[in-house]
Amino acid sequence: MIGFTLLGTDGAARRGRLATAHGTIETPAFMPVGTAATVKAMRPEEVAATGAEIVLGNTYHLMLRPGAERIAALGGLHRFMNWPRAILTDSGGYQVMSLSALRQIDESGVTFRSHLDGTRMALSPERSIEIQRLLGADIAMAFDECTPFPATEDEARRSMELSMRWAARSQAAFVDRAGAGLFGIVQGSVYPDLRRESAAALAALGFDGYAVGGLAVGEGQAAMFAVLDKTVPALPADRPHYLMGVGKPADIVGAVLRGIDMFDCVLPTRSGRTAQAFTRRGTVNLRNARHGEDPRPLDEACACAACAQYSRAYLHHLARASEILGSMLLTEHNLRYYGDLMRDLRGAIETRSLADFAAGFAALQAGGDVSPLES
Amino acid sequence: MIGFTLLGTDGAARRGRLATAHGTIETPAFMPVGTAATVKAMRPEEVAATGAEIVLGNTYHLMLRPGAERIAALGGLHRFMNWPRAILTDSGGYQVMSLSALRQIDESGVTFRSHLDGTRMALSPERSIEIQRLLGADIAMAFDECTPFPATEDEARRSMELSMRWAARSQAAFVDRAGAGLFGIVQGSVYPDLRRESAAALAALGFDGYAVGGLAVGEGQAAMFAVLDKTVPALPADRPHYLMGVGKPADIVGAVLRGIDMFDCVLPTRSGRTAQAFTRRGTVNLRNARHGEDPRPLDEACACAACAQYSRAYLHHLARASEILGSMLLTEHNLRYYGDLMRDLRGAIETRSLADFAAGFAALQAGGDVSPLES
Repeated sequence: MIGFTLLGTDGAARRGRLATAHGTIETPAFMPVGTAATVKAMRPEEVAATGAEIVLGNTYHLMLRPGAERIAALGGLHRFMNWPRAILTDSGGYQVMSLSALRQIDESGVTFRSHLDGTRMALSPERSIEIQRLLGADIAMAFDECTPFPATEDEARRSMELSMRWAARSQAAFVDRAGAGLFGIVQGSVYPDLRRESAAALAALGFDGYAVGGLAVGEGQAAMFAVLDKTVPALPADRPHYLMGVGKPADIVGAVLRGIDMFDCVLPTRSGRTAQAFTRRGTVNLRNARHGEDPRPLDEACACAACAQYSRAYLHHLARASEILGSMLLTEHNLRYYGDLMRDLRGAIETRSLADFAAGFAALQAGGDVSPLES
Repeated sequence: MIGFTLLGTDGAARRGRLATAHGTIETPAFMPVGTAATVKAMRPEEVAATGAEIVLGNTYHLMLRPGAERIAALGGLHRFMNWPRAILTDSGGYQVMSLSALRQIDESGVTFRSHLDGTRMALSPERSIEIQRLLGADIAMAFDECTPFPATEDEARRSMELSMRWAARSQAAFVDRAGAGLFGIVQGSVYPDLRRESAAALAALGFDGYAVGGLAVGEGQAAMFAVLDKTVPALPADRPHYLMGVGKPADIVGAVLRGIDMFDCVLPTRSGRTAQAFTRRGTVNLRNARHGEDPRPLDEACACAACAQYSRAYLHHLARASEILGSMLLTEHNLRYYGDLMRDLRGAIETRSLADFAAGFAALQAGGDVSPLES
């Protein structure tokens, strides 16, 4: 059981606080992705300095390497990766479908071959929950099937109903302990009736939090927001709402406006390794030749090391030379951008000025890569 | 002109202090290599925390990308790479011969094609010194030819004499300024008479410091030490002695015993990116499967983050997963190892106990990768 306190609202948006065995998380919150027991190119204390209070670990990657039982023997994932704050683990369901080979799915679960070495492995609701317990997750996710997109309504129903049966099995397998909780995952593709039915089924089971899954899979922002408009009101209001795998800054702002409390996405970290920077005025590609002689900081209003201590010309040089320091600095910058965005969103909800904040955000971002910051 | 104060001696070994426009350097000193305006996988403040007071920049790499004139326009190399302490730049002579394509050497200098994009370029004593001035080096190196190994005595003489003419041209081109200096480079391969002749020629010109070049090119440690035994006594005693491109910890200890004050080498940084760790008890390959479940620190006596905050099992995992954090942590560890070694060597000279220190060092290192640390 984990605590969730709703501190205030602004329209559908919520300001809250999660309490776990590894500290509290102010919501709305963004969770950096630490796939293989590391947020890539970052030391854990640097991750915390960007404002992150919780990171995500990937069950699929960790069960393959180094193995859940090994991490448990070494004291759990927090100790293994030197991250003393909260950790949410996914169930492995999404990545076993997107990364593994020769996968076969049936009522019992999924069998597959590791994308690393071809080893034959299996995941089921029971094994996923066991792995997440071995890792020591503060928040575990129910094992589900991420419905492929696009899907017909019949396909989406069959997939959603399987996920609901797996959610019940996940819940039965989960051993409750203080400061740790289990979230259910709403499926149903882009079909409002299926989403509402899924939300009701999960609410009847009773979870510590409710995630919206199966989005950010190619449906586009408008369709995603339409699903949220129909789905979030059907989620229990006294529990946190988590939009999985989202997203771009504008996606996050729109989802917070619709009542989402938690996010995760590889975008800030992956982009940091490909010289893409997020800024108040849109994204900046630091490989672009026009940065080569620019002595200005990436964003003069940002307090991260990349902006405070280096020029765009230097960041451009590191990107062109494929230097590891470039990945380090831009990952830090992007996580700081996301951390600052979440802090500002929380502040706007507290002062009930979220609509104004969102309008200002959209106006500044509109320029994108040809904004004043770029000229 | 840079200052050098000889603080004490222990046999041939010397305890000294260099004074540059960007701070003092306690010697014997190790200089981490920051080839492309970054010590790979390290933030500059992390480099400083390992004990480094000076880093090396590579003229060849920087002239190719981003270009010396560009770095000068951006305020010089210190500002560009956010390293406020001292910088020594090499002359480009060694790397133009080892890395570039279609190089042609004559009395005037070297023409070549960039290994990055094939651009036709040239280096000469005058251009090398100009580039090093544009970079803002605290210590510049005379342009020389690193004599190939092996070389006949005739080949070595012709090469050394060319380098001596280039040294005179380098000195003529160098614009003296407060806190910046120019070092000459002794050549002569493994031939004691040539080495002494080269040292005498440079001493007659008068440099701020004297480097021993053309070693660590395949001749082996015994031959290298034999050259030092004949060469270092011929160097002006009131000026710093720099052994270029060296080396393994045991090479450094032996060279300090023979009167060398400064070192640079890619070994600690490059090894950090290939999971090779230097420790008091020899080198450790963290990719080895026997580290996979080992909860102990890499070296319980080391204060670096890799040793203080992580297990060998985690470092092994990062290495196997090719995670950037593995390169970051092991580079920091290796630079800390080198920094601690230099600190201990300085302390042993101060207390005139260097012979005992060297004996203890050799006994501990002898175990290598099968030492107690490994079992």
